[in-house]
Amino acid sequence: MLTLRTSPASPFGRKVRIAAALLGLEARVAIVLADTGDPADSLRQQNPLGKIPALIAEDGEAIFDSRVIVEYLDGLAGGGRLFPADLAARIPVLTLQALADGIADAAVLQVYERRMREPAERSAKWVDYQAGKVTRALAALESKPPEAGATHVGAIALACTLGYLDLRFAGEWRTGHPKLVAWLDAFAAAVPAFAATHYSA
Amino acid sequence: MLTLRTSPASPFGRKVRIAAALLGLEARVAIVLADTGDPADSLRQQNPLGKIPALIAEDGEAIFDSRVIVEYLDGLAGGGRLFPADLAARIPVLTLQALADGIADAAVLQVYERRMREPAERSAKWVDYQAGKVTRALAALESKPPEAGATHVGAIALACTLGYLDLRFAGEWRTGHPKLVAWLDAFAAAVPAFAATHYSA
Repeated sequence: MLTLRTSPASPFGRKVRIAAALLGLEARVAIVLADTGDPADSLRQQNPLGKIPALIAEDGEAIFDSRVIVEYLDGLAGGGRLFPADLAARIPVLTLQALADGIADAAVLQVYERRMREPAERSAKWVDYQAGKVTRALAALESKPPEAGATHVGAIALACTLGYLDLRFAGEWRTGHPKLVAWLDAFAAAVPAFAATHYSA
Repeated sequence: MLTLRTSPASPFGRKVRIAAALLGLEARVAIVLADTGDPADSLRQQNPLGKIPALIAEDGEAIFDSRVIVEYLDGLAGGGRLFPADLAARIPVLTLQALADGIADAAVLQVYERRMREPAERSAKWVDYQAGKVTRALAALESKPPEAGATHVGAIALACTLGYLDLRFAGEWRTGHPKLVAWLDAFAAAVPAFAATHYSA
């Protein structure tokens, strides 16, 4: 059995869960929730960075971050399922994943600004700097959306990032990005695990 | 010709430069410095996240982040040079890269705390949270250092991260981590590009 340390709201944990479902590995992955803010949580022994998701393999070795976990699961399932094998096709998919992960990172930093700081310690300049990354990346994606119905790791990452913007920023991204909205609808229709991993608290 | 947008101090840009050198691709990569703080820099068109490094391929497509660029360069050089081909060997190398990159991310966030905020906006709690990631990760690596002389992507990433801690945190990491110091010395001896990409301003 593989053990996944994650939390219900994490876009990166959701990426791993959707990948496991698409690869038919869901039954082999036991989810054990982790609290990144609790120094006593064993997560910090498993991943010294204290970040989720982390996957504990059957030999006890920890595998992280989400990109590495998805590559591991894909390999367990035979390889080449969520990653194109050919370099010329693989690199744009990996860049899309990096772009989607980067949007999520910038969104998470804005959430942390509220959650981990006193009001006087918050910086409008920093929040604007992170929000600018999200705005520019969404505009680039809207002008050239990924292929509809794709289920590679780049598409999974983008769907989880848009889901996170729905969760934490009240879906404001939907305004002005009709092609991305349609793209996400097509992804959700193709991948039941997207709805199954929805979180709204 | 490939164009690499980076800055001399970036640990992630250094990773790409060392990878290019180890792969014999240095002469194909032209470096064009980027200013991540300048909205007018073309970097933000190339990578909407405004992050370095980004590689512009010969067809004009942008490839990022550093992990994806290194995988692309490895593929250009025939594949399997900086990444073990076998899954069981590949995953620990990728996890080491994620750990090293995570240390660098936590270090960069501490630097940004000083650089991008007014003194009153700085949070000791946030800085301690990031510093804790670095401390725990270095302790984990000291207790089980990577193989001496390895030149895979995990080793390259770790060397660049330790070099960044030398640059921005006055080499404080060296105290209490003699095995990691010896490991870095062995890496530097095996990889001339490490010294060749040293930056000290």
